[in-house]
Amino acid sequence: MDNTQPRMRWWGWGEDGHDGPVKPGAKKMLTKSCGWPEGVNRPPIDLDAVQLPGAELPDDARSRFDELLGAAYVRDDRATRVSHAAGRSVPDLLRLRSGQMPFAPDAVLFPASEAEVDELLAICSQERIAVVPFGGGTSVVGGIDAFRPGFRSCVCISLARLDQVLDIDEKSLTVTAQAGVFGPDLEERLQAEGFTLGHFPQSFEFSTVGGWVSTRSAGQQSTGYGRIDENVFGLHCSTPSGPIRLHPTPASAAGPNPRQMLIGSEGTLGIITQATLRIKRLPETTLPDAWFFPDFHSGATALREMEQTGLRPDIARLSDVNETAFGLAQLGSGLQRKGLLAFLRARGVTTPCLLVLRYDGRTSDARSRRAAGRAIAKKQTGVSIGGAPETMWEKHRFSTPYLRDQLMTEGIVVETMETAAQWSTIEDLHDTIRQDIEKSLADRGTPALVLCHVSHLYTAGCSLYYTVFAQQQEGQEMEQWTALKTAAGDAMVDNGGTITHHHATGADHAPWLAEETGELWLRMLRAAKAEVDPGGIMNPGKLMHGPTTL
Amino acid sequence: MDNTQPRMRWWGWGEDGHDGPVKPGAKKMLTKSCGWPEGVNRPPIDLDAVQLPGAELPDDARSRFDELLGAAYVRDDRATRVSHAAGRSVPDLLRLRSGQMPFAPDAVLFPASEAEVDELLAICSQERIAVVPFGGGTSVVGGIDAFRPGFRSCVCISLARLDQVLDIDEKSLTVTAQAGVFGPDLEERLQAEGFTLGHFPQSFEFSTVGGWVSTRSAGQQSTGYGRIDENVFGLHCSTPSGPIRLHPTPASAAGPNPRQMLIGSEGTLGIITQATLRIKRLPETTLPDAWFFPDFHSGATALREMEQTGLRPDIARLSDVNETAFGLAQLGSGLQRKGLLAFLRARGVTTPCLLVLRYDGRTSDARSRRAAGRAIAKKQTGVSIGGAPETMWEKHRFSTPYLRDQLMTEGIVVETMETAAQWSTIEDLHDTIRQDIEKSLADRGTPALVLCHVSHLYTAGCSLYYTVFAQQQEGQEMEQWTALKTAAGDAMVDNGGTITHHHATGADHAPWLAEETGELWLRMLRAAKAEVDPGGIMNPGKLMHGPTTL
Repeated sequence: MDNTQPRMRWWGWGEDGHDGPVKPGAKKMLTKSCGWPEGVNRPPIDLDAVQLPGAELPDDARSRFDELLGAAYVRDDRATRVSHAAGRSVPDLLRLRSGQMPFAPDAVLFPASEAEVDELLAICSQERIAVVPFGGGTSVVGGIDAFRPGFRSCVCISLARLDQVLDIDEKSLTVTAQAGVFGPDLEERLQAEGFTLGHFPQSFEFSTVGGWVSTRSAGQQSTGYGRIDENVFGLHCSTPSGPIRLHPTPASAAGPNPRQMLIGSEGTLGIITQATLRIKRLPETTLPDAWFFPDFHSGATALREMEQTGLRPDIARLSDVNETAFGLAQLGSGLQRKGLLAFLRARGVTTPCLLVLRYDGRTSDARSRRAAGRAIAKKQTGVSIGGAPETMWEKHRFSTPYLRDQLMTEGIVVETMETAAQWSTIEDLHDTIRQDIEKSLADRGTPALVLCHVSHLYTAGCSLYYTVFAQQQEGQEMEQWTALKTAAGDAMVDNGGTITHHHATGADHAPWLAEETGELWLRMLRAAKAEVDPGGIMNPGKLMHGPTTL
Repeated sequence: MDNTQPRMRWWGWGEDGHDGPVKPGAKKMLTKSCGWPEGVNRPPIDLDAVQLPGAELPDDARSRFDELLGAAYVRDDRATRVSHAAGRSVPDLLRLRSGQMPFAPDAVLFPASEAEVDELLAICSQERIAVVPFGGGTSVVGGIDAFRPGFRSCVCISLARLDQVLDIDEKSLTVTAQAGVFGPDLEERLQAEGFTLGHFPQSFEFSTVGGWVSTRSAGQQSTGYGRIDENVFGLHCSTPSGPIRLHPTPASAAGPNPRQMLIGSEGTLGIITQATLRIKRLPETTLPDAWFFPDFHSGATALREMEQTGLRPDIARLSDVNETAFGLAQLGSGLQRKGLLAFLRARGVTTPCLLVLRYDGRTSDARSRRAAGRAIAKKQTGVSIGGAPETMWEKHRFSTPYLRDQLMTEGIVVETMETAAQWSTIEDLHDTIRQDIEKSLADRGTPALVLCHVSHLYTAGCSLYYTVFAQQQEGQEMEQWTALKTAAGDAMVDNGGTITHHHATGADHAPWLAEETGELWLRMLRAAKAEVDPGGIMNPGKLMHGPTTL
């Protein structure tokens, strides 16, 4: 199989064949909240019409790359350059779809081994060429935009050919995989042997081991299976100053854990080439469950109690009033929806908040956890509706990003953002962020629909994930997005939240880093970076050095 | 209460009144393995006879300290200097007991607030004075030895007056405490309100929140309650370049987690002044259990299965054949021991390995976990003996260090060391370390008795904790210790282990850091340090800058 072809279409999410018209109920709700831009049709431009900067790879560098990799793995054709130029953030999509690309790599390099990555970074360091690592290209925060501030040239290093699952240690329950292994390939291999990583970010189908580790990814089952940063035991990273090879260890007190410095470094320190990760045996059973709560507060209280008493659902996802209504609006049959709402009204639930849950494990254990969870949900005045909503959510869980592409064609912008905070502040934060986003867009004359859900539980707090819809301001799309992003980011960081729970920092969240972690930490991070990347070639304009003015 | 008086006696562990003669059975076993140095009596020297370097605190610095803290909190009397000069490693004890102290702080400073710590570090930075932070003084790896390489003066900053529990967030299940809060004081306060941190290192009675965080401490219940590095959400740290204040967050993807850079930094980057930590509600019940296994392998296999199937005992401690025999030898009555051994022999267990377990939580849950654990232990041919051995172990769990002091008086050196590794390598590692330690001491004509236990479980592996006894080589105590330490450290790091699971690095483990984590990581760490501590005044000669030639 030729892994070097990107798995995602160049202008948007995923693969063709998953798009479809916006469902009538959703359209109705969007129309009511945001107004509907009738008659708008803004499909992506043709690939041939995309305007790219000229490729400026110096000849001497090119010949060194050719010699090392073979010319077939040093590519600068239009399709390769465009498909590796950016991720899938709103600004990325605006640029790609309009064909106005202010940046793109001069070439995309496909090394086949750690040694080749080491060597490429040495060459790029000597030649002063900016390097952007590329796994699956799914960043939604500008994390892989091919910036080249101050550099004459920029290359993208794709991990596509580092695609081997190297070892499954059945005794230690760990898997060692190269960075370029994609989610589905890893799970297929693990599940064939009776194991699972249990890591299912929404990007699962198109993202890689290296991408997960370098962005501190969390998956939809991370409440049960752990965030990636909790599951890394060993790590290999190539840097311009040489490789860092950290052998797997379950725990250590030998100073600050170097793994934790590389996890979440987003390609700014080096390129993660291999990781040893915790796996679990495939659960004997997975039990779905679902509840409607009369309000967000009672649902959040139930979640908190579930997590803090240790029964720990493997999946827990609580939608607020708006998100629940939006989900219900998309139910195939209006009758079905009306029947459900009547059922809930009869039980005193007029502004329902849907909670879906799943309990994995040995059957007896999963059953007793579900029973304990049900007792908690009931105490918080939840209304039980069986497991079907969870099963349905799971069936469609990777398809939501396609809706964003479809809506952009129809003149609606969709942005998603997430944060996390302590339980003691989470409800106020939930309201504040929503209100600030709504205000920022209403002020521009484009009222918003703001949905939110909790999807990751911790004993001390939880995540909040927002989806925002508004009519696009044609000609001012970036200003509109900046206003929205600024309002949300300020609301998060000023009120006890983090600027990102699992999307990472990239270029888009970099302006809030200093406020969240302090300037002194960024100075430490930059100093550590200067040691491994003295030329500053690694993924410039991101994280502690972002964002870059284009 | 005047917290500024050290809680431990100046020359050894803990408080007076806990010493006693070595029990006959233990003496018999030591005699058999190591030979007994008859007639040796080497008590610690008198405090007045301890030879200290002269105090060299410059007058201008002293007056600035006096002005900031008040002269009562700038102390340089002999008792204060000696009791803050070192921790409780074997080299520390050798030096303290013999009265040959090549180092001691010129003064001990007692700030009462974060602002005062900030200010002290600024002064010390300007005046080029080395700073050693002091919590409880329990380091067993030379972590707080008052080195001053290249500095004209050295002060110790005690956190004794930062002793407040600032907040218990009952909703988020977190406690915010100042660094100088001692274990018992924190637990007393928490338990009065129905909570526990569940952090019980062997040093519990004499160590502090700040010490735990700065050394990546793990407690005897960490299998259930988590290591300290898993339980820190918020952190304040003063550095010579200014404060770092990280607000509590349950999770974040905003780049590498700065908390993880400060946790385990051992005072080399700054002084941790405050931490927000995960707490739990006090368990409804704690159920003890205990088993004898016919060998280490079957016990380790049972532990692995317990952890990997998720039933997770809160305490799990498996002693190998030697440690079990040593424990049994100390049983009050020889008859009791003989009866037990006969009982085990009748069940095919001739080289017993004792496993003690505890299950905490809701009664029904703890019971079902214990039942599941029992099924696993039985499958691994364990012999059940009820819960009494666990209860007995728990009763005496903080008293073992006193034995070391007593034995040193009688001419026997006792060293403890710990590592961790993946399950797939742990059994080979267990043998290799023991054999290498035995060889290193046999080669010097002082044969060793080496005990080992597993005390912390992870899905991927576990810890190994060694206790080593040998006759002291009078006049060559340090060479003997170096030989032993080198053999153990090499065996750990060369065979998939870490140089330390929970004792930290200090001066003693520093020589292995580069091999374990790579020189490039140490360069990153040093570069980050240079940013917050440009003068290199913070705890010199430790971690990435250790060890120092005295």
